[in-house]
Parts: sequence; structure tokens; C-alpha cells
Amino acid sequence: MLVWRMEHKKAENKKPEAKKKDEIDSLKIKKSDDFSEWYNQLVQKAGLADYAPISGCMIIRPYGFAVWEKIQRWFDDRIKATGVANAYFPLFIPERFLKKESEHFEGFMPEVAWVEKKDEGEERYALRPTSETIMYDSYAKWIRSWRDLPLRINQWCNIIRWEVKATRLFLRTREFLWQEGHTAHATEEECEKEVSLRAAQYRELIETQLAIPVIMGKKSRSETFAGADYTIALEALMPDGRGLQMATSHKLGQHFAKVFGITFMDQEGKEKLVWQTSWGLTTRTIGALTMMHGDDKGLVLPPNIAPTQIVIIPIYDNITKHEVLKEGEKIKKKLETRFSVRLDDRDVYSPGWKFNEWEMKGVPLRIEIGPRDIKNKQVIFVRRDTAEKKSVKESEVVESVERTLHAIQENLYKKAQENMLANVREARTFAELEKLIENKKMVKCHWCGDEKCEASVKEKTGATIRCIEGEAKEGKCAACGKPAKVSVYFAKAY
Amino acid sequence: MLVWRMEHKKAENKKPEAKKKDEIDSLKIKKSDDFSEWYNQLVQKAGLADYAPISGCMIIRPYGFAVWEKIQRWFDDRIKATGVANAYFPLFIPERFLKKESEHFEGFMPEVAWVEKKDEGEERYALRPTSETIMYDSYAKWIRSWRDLPLRINQWCNIIRWEVKATRLFLRTREFLWQEGHTAHATEEECEKEVSLRAAQYRELIETQLAIPVIMGKKSRSETFAGADYTIALEALMPDGRGLQMATSHKLGQHFAKVFGITFMDQEGKEKLVWQTSWGLTTRTIGALTMMHGDDKGLVLPPNIAPTQIVIIPIYDNITKHEVLKEGEKIKKKLETRFSVRLDDRDVYSPGWKFNEWEMKGVPLRIEIGPRDIKNKQVIFVRRDTAEKKSVKESEVVESVERTLHAIQENLYKKAQENMLANVREARTFAELEKLIENKKMVKCHWCGDEKCEASVKEKTGATIRCIEGEAKEGKCAACGKPAKVSVYFAKAY
Repeated sequence: MLVWRMEHKKAENKKPEAKKKDEIDSLKIKKSDDFSEWYNQLVQKAGLADYAPISGCMIIRPYGFAVWEKIQRWFDDRIKATGVANAYFPLFIPERFLKKESEHFEGFMPEVAWVEKKDEGEERYALRPTSETIMYDSYAKWIRSWRDLPLRINQWCNIIRWEVKATRLFLRTREFLWQEGHTAHATEEECEKEVSLRAAQYRELIETQLAIPVIMGKKSRSETFAGADYTIALEALMPDGRGLQMATSHKLGQHFAKVFGITFMDQEGKEKLVWQTSWGLTTRTIGALTMMHGDDKGLVLPPNIAPTQIVIIPIYDNITKHEVLKEGEKIKKKLETRFSVRLDDRDVYSPGWKFNEWEMKGVPLRIEIGPRDIKNKQVIFVRRDTAEKKSVKESEVVESVERTLHAIQENLYKKAQENMLANVREARTFAELEKLIENKKMVKCHWCGDEKCEASVKEKTGATIRCIEGEAKEGKCAACGKPAKVSVYFAKAY
Repeated sequence: MLVWRMEHKKAENKKPEAKKKDEIDSLKIKKSDDFSEWYNQLVQKAGLADYAPISGCMIIRPYGFAVWEKIQRWFDDRIKATGVANAYFPLFIPERFLKKESEHFEGFMPEVAWVEKKDEGEERYALRPTSETIMYDSYAKWIRSWRDLPLRINQWCNIIRWEVKATRLFLRTREFLWQEGHTAHATEEECEKEVSLRAAQYRELIETQLAIPVIMGKKSRSETFAGADYTIALEALMPDGRGLQMATSHKLGQHFAKVFGITFMDQEGKEKLVWQTSWGLTTRTIGALTMMHGDDKGLVLPPNIAPTQIVIIPIYDNITKHEVLKEGEKIKKKLETRFSVRLDDRDVYSPGWKFNEWEMKGVPLRIEIGPRDIKNKQVIFVRRDTAEKKSVKESEVVESVERTLHAIQENLYKKAQENMLANVREARTFAELEKLIENKKMVKCHWCGDEKCEASVKEKTGATIRCIEGEAKEGKCAACGKPAKVSVYFAKAY
């Protein structure tokens, strides 16, 4: 709360002095010096998001929202191609619904916000912390026979969880945006296939579009979604050594089906309970993207997810202006059918100011054009990720852009993967584990499966099990030394 | 409330008997017999929406949401092409913000829902009934100089207005979805141009996509948006003689700029207040679409907005099945690059059942294929709007679909326009006006401009001024007989 109040106060201050218009508001801190403050400045200065004048809330600014729209479009197309339809369920959830599945209720209870009672005799309404209960009440009415299965519905909506910890833009806010998919199936096998399919789609989104490698595996019991049989988590390792949960896919099994009475008539005329899944991905992925690829000059966006992939900066004086702008338009026309490109022809800013601004905004590729370039039938490419500069023949600009964007996408993924390889370490003993966590590593180790060991590691190091890697054939629990059941990843988490 | 409670009770009843699978759940009432009940049944049976288990709320089901997505895509593309970017502002609005513009606050106060207080010392938060105040607090911080103008931001979000009147799906619910555009400009001229541009885009959407003709004009003072200089409304006439506000575009002028301190430095270095607009369109347009074009067999969707434009129904027995399905696939492949087409190859339903279901869902064009058609190298077209049946040569199917969908779109608009021409009547006296309203007409008449006359018409007939048609050169006020200032449209309204 304290952190928030300070930020809020800042935001509510009087207008700062009008900035000099030839220098942009650059980052005042290095990523390596104070990661948290660097992130905070970057999110705001790149125009991704802002603190709202409401405790714990954020404003997603147009540039941040454009990134979210790219994520939405990619994922929405994929789920629609695999049998999912979108719908919209109410923001309000009756208290009695939340209470039906007791584990679920207790899991969410501390963070639930309620509507002030308005009408006599009306029940208490929560603002949705997640929509299982309100959706499954309808599923119980809509599903009659095997013909109605599988049922696959998704919604893109706002979610309210009344966090009390310090606000972090995109990472911890009282309201955020997400998609939540909810499916019902006739058999357990189909249900498990669905859980895996959605996890695989998340993995593809995160790795091929956001250029962030993930570790994927089941959650331990204590970190499993409240009301699920198991949860598959996609975990990324941030540059500060913390794990960040990118998305989750839950096998709900028949827990909710039982309490909401979601049954169907099978082909033999027998009434059966359905098998269910739910899965979600939130706007915190934008935070992950920012932390993972950003640098001291600002954001670095992977080309596949960048709202603007290329910015063309014309460099001219009064004499050459007409010619240079004409050439800029020509290059833009060549590119715009295949790429999202912007020609920055604003007269009121200098080229240097524009370089800085688009670097802050993380546009993957800058193309500079000046009078000499026109004479030489070339343009200048500057990569955002490496700052590498090269001249490209005008006749080859389309192919070269294609290759360069591809190379940037690959390079960002490779760098992130190197970060992961360098910072995921194995521990055999608790002392090793503790030291690695202290040194900001993610730790792979064995675990006996006892929740006491898990809790004791958390208490002593602050690290939690991000996910289970797999069965452990041999080896000992890093916490208690007893024979291990599984191999797990421990890290401090966002 | 009573109406809602009845519906709710129905919805909460035990599962109805499993339906016989060869007859769909058809409408139990005619449009001409009980328009309101017909609408209510249609929305639910076509799978557009359902009553939620929360007082006054609805569930937008996948089919209804697919229509909303078509509307969203069309409009979102248009506004982005004209300088608007999407963003997301918080659901929560501090009470002190709402109170800043007193007219605005009083306008919304009765319908505002509040969050239960969670933390000591925190202020009271409303659930957004509209977002002017929360957005303009940020605008005041973001706008510094003329370089930052125009600023054009839109958001697609949920809106909460705690209605106490009986719930009507899509038309009156406590939560609905909308888009709200909010712009700031350097001059009054630009501001007014923006108001007109958005009104024109709404008109194009409603007339060319939804096939609903509209009357467009300014609202009278009493119906103007709380806090606006003026409101341009787009009003449609429903088949029951009621007006339905389809969208509004507001000139906010400088009211909000004054109270939120939204100023900018102009090119001469002088500080000035910005000029603002806001404009919105909600999910109630889906209700309008349903009422306007639907018939006793179900929904009738204009091809431009139909999630599925064509359904192919194969007609076969065990012997011909393979051949007919193969032909169905072939036709589908021909069509699917240009149209949204579905081949209904579900084995568990009869062709008759499928005809009924897709008629209920309002799919504009049905294509039937049977063994004899294959022999004759033809298919059968059945139009949803006219039930007209014709055979089409297989080789001409693409061109013929194109022509037929175009004809359906035109015909629906034409029929809606005829309805409007037949039901908008002129009145010269109050007696005429009263009688026409009684006979479910929309009335065009003169008005002196006095709010007392407006209020007295409302009190005596239930009709309100939907919008102002224009200046009145001569003529007398239909209410008081004094010289008229303007010509207006009166109707009962949704």
C-alpha cells in the first residue's frame, strides 16, 4: 500500500514543467542497478500503462493495449480454430455460488470485492475473481445430452482481486484483463487432452510470439488452482531471478460438475457427470515481455507482437524535405502490405528525438532515409535489439526487412533462453538451494512430496515450487533428505 | 423486478425433460400477437442471450456474442482508420470524480452501484456507469501542448447501471457491453467535426450492416447526455412503434475540461482548454436487430452481420451419404474463402430439424444438396428472409451466393424502411399527436422549445422527443399552439 500511495501522490501532482521537445523523458536508472525501479519507469515512459487514481489499479494506455490486442488476436484465432466460442457472463457472482465449492471459495475469499447492497432482500454479489461458478450454473442448464458435448466457451473480460500487497503495473493490480476458457467433456480422456491442448497453445504463443522460453509442468498441491484436480503452469524466469507464471491450464475434473449438477445423458441413456477444464492468460504477460527484453534505452518488442514493427525516419532539411518524404512514402508503401510500418513525418521533432522515442517504445526496426541514401539507392537499417546499423539496397528492402525481423525475433528468444540456461541451477541439499535462491537463481531439485518440506523452503528462502519437472527415479529431497518422488523447480515468484 | 423474478424462477427450475431430438424448441407466440413475449422467447431460443441468476443481468451466449464481435470488428476497423486507439481504464471511479461535474453526477447518481468499502480510509468507488471522469483525470495529465492533440481513445468494456425497471435482454440490464470513444481537440470546429464523424460512422454501421434505417438529430435539452453541450442521437423505429436509441455522439464542449483542468499550450504559447467529445454504442443494438428483422420462425440476420452467412444441409440416406457429403464439402470449399459458411453434417439430426434450427438462428441463406441435385449439377437455395426457393447451377454457385446475399441485405433494409415510412406520421395538434402515439406511431411535429410542453406530452402520452429534425420555419407547437422553433420526433422509447 505504501508503495502505491507514493506513486499515486506523484501522479496526482500538478503538471510538470512542459518538457523540452527535443529530448524525450529517458529512463533515469539502469536495468542492472535497480531492476524494480527500472521496470516501473519503463512501463510508464514507454506509454504502456499508468497508475490509476484508485488504490491498486492501473490504466492500460493505448500502446500497452495495442500489445494486448496483438496477443488477443493471435490466441483468439487459435482457440476459435479448435472449437472454442466467445461469450460474456456477468461481472457479479452470487455469494452462494462461490460457496458451493468450498475449496474454491476459501481460495478466493480473501481477495473478493463485494457490491454494496442495493435492494432489500437481495443476496450479496462478488465482483468476479474468476468465473467458474457463474458459468457452470449455466452449463448445468445448457448441457442435456452427449450431443451438447464438448462445450467450449471463452471470455475476454476484467477480473477483480482485491490485492493488499504493493501494486506493480501489469503484475499485481486489483483489476486486470484476461481470457478464461471453460470446457466440459464426456470423458476424462478428452478432458485431459483439452488441458494439454490449451497449455500447448499458450506455450506456442509465449515462445514464438513473446519470445519467452517457458518451463511447463504441474503445480504442487498447495499451488494448484482452488477446486482443480491439477494445474499445468507455464513459468518464465525473469532477469531478476524470479519466476513469473505466464498462463495456467486446469483439469477441474468433476468437482464443479458435482456441486453444480452438470450432467449429461450418454449414448446409452445413462446420466453422467461431465469432465471440465479451465485455462487463462492475463495482461501480466505484457509485464513479462517488458522485463524480459527491455534495456536501458527502453522497451524491446519481439517483431511478432510489436504493434509497429518498423518505423521510417526521414532525415531532411528545407531543401531536401520534399524529396526525402516522397522516398519515405515509397518505402512505406512497399512494406505496408506485409508489415506494420509507420513513417514518422512529424515536423516538430528532430530525427534524434524520434530515434529516442521509438527506441523507448521498442519498435524492432528503424529505417533511416536521407538525401545521400536516395542518391545511393539505399536505406539505413538500425536494429533495436543489437543497435546494429547497416545499409540496404532500396531494391532489396522488402526481403531484407523480412530477414531482419525474423533475426530479431530469433535473437530475443535466444537471449532469453541463455538467461534461463545460466540461471536455472541444480541443488542437492538445502544449503545449496538456499544459496542459489539468495543468488537469484531458479533451482531444480528433488522433493519428497511432503507439503511440510515445501512450506519450510518457502519460509526460509521465500521460494515456492513453480512447477514439477517430472518423476524422480532416484535422489533425495533437498529439504529433508528423504527419498524423492519428483523433481521440481523452486524460485521466488511474482 | 417482478418480471425478472418470474424469468429467474423459470431459469432456476430443474432441467426440463430432454427434448425430442427431431423437433426444435420453436417460438410459442407470434410477433404480431405479443411482441414483447415474442422477443423474449426469440432471444433465448435463438441462443443469443439468457437471464443470469443475478437480478437484472444477462448472459450473452456464444451466438449473440458472435454478432457482437461482427459489430465490434466493423466499427473498430473504422475508428482505427480515423485516428482512434483503444485503451483500458479502471472499472472503479472515485466518488469525488463523479461529483466534479455536478450535472453529470446528478444524471447518473440514481443508477450507480458502489463497491463495499474494503480498506480503512479509502474513498468510495463507483462501478463505472460511463468513463468520462476517470478518463479525463488522465487526459489532464497526458495533454501538455498542441502537439498532443487531437487525442482519441476508445475502450470496449462492461458498464454498470443499476436499473430498477423490469429487465429486458439486451435492452435493459444492469450490466451491458459497449464502446466509449473520448476525444480532445484544440478547437471547437475540430470538436464538432469529430461529433459528426462518429455519428456518420454509426449511421453507416447501423444502416449498411444492421440494415436498420435511422433518424439522426440532436436531443432536446432534457434528453441530452449529462454534462454535454449537445447530443446527436441515432434513433430507430421498432415494429411495435417504440423508438430505440441505437447510438449517441456527444459534444462535451469544455465542461469537463474546466472541472478536470484539461489544458494545452497552443502554438503561440498560450494555455487553453481543450474541446471534447464522447460517443458510444452498446449491445442493445443486438436487441434492435432481433426485433426489427425477426419473424415467427426466429431470427433473421442481415448477411453483412451474420456470424454464419450460409448453411449447407446435405440430404442423404445410407446409400447416398458419402456422395452427398463429398459434394457438400466441395461447395463449402468453393464458398469459404469469400463467405462464412457451415456444412451441417451432424448425423444425429434430421434435415427438417436442421432447417428449423438454422431458421431460428436466422442464417440468411440455406443451401440444400441431395442426390438428385448432384445428378442435375445443381443445388437448392432457400432465402431466410422471403422463404423463396430456387435451384442454382453448381457452376454458378459462387456468383449466385454473392447476388443472393446482397439481395437479402437490401431487402431487409427496404422492409425496415417501409416500416418506418408507414409509421412515422405528422401531427399538427395535441389531439392528433396523442392519437398517433396511442396507435403506436412515431410522430413528427412542431415544438416551441419549452420544456414544459415536452414534459406535458410525456406525462399525457408516455412519448418523449427522440430527436430534433431541424429548424421550423413556420408552424405551431403541437402541445401549446405557440409559434414553433423546431420540428421534432416524438415516440415512446425503449
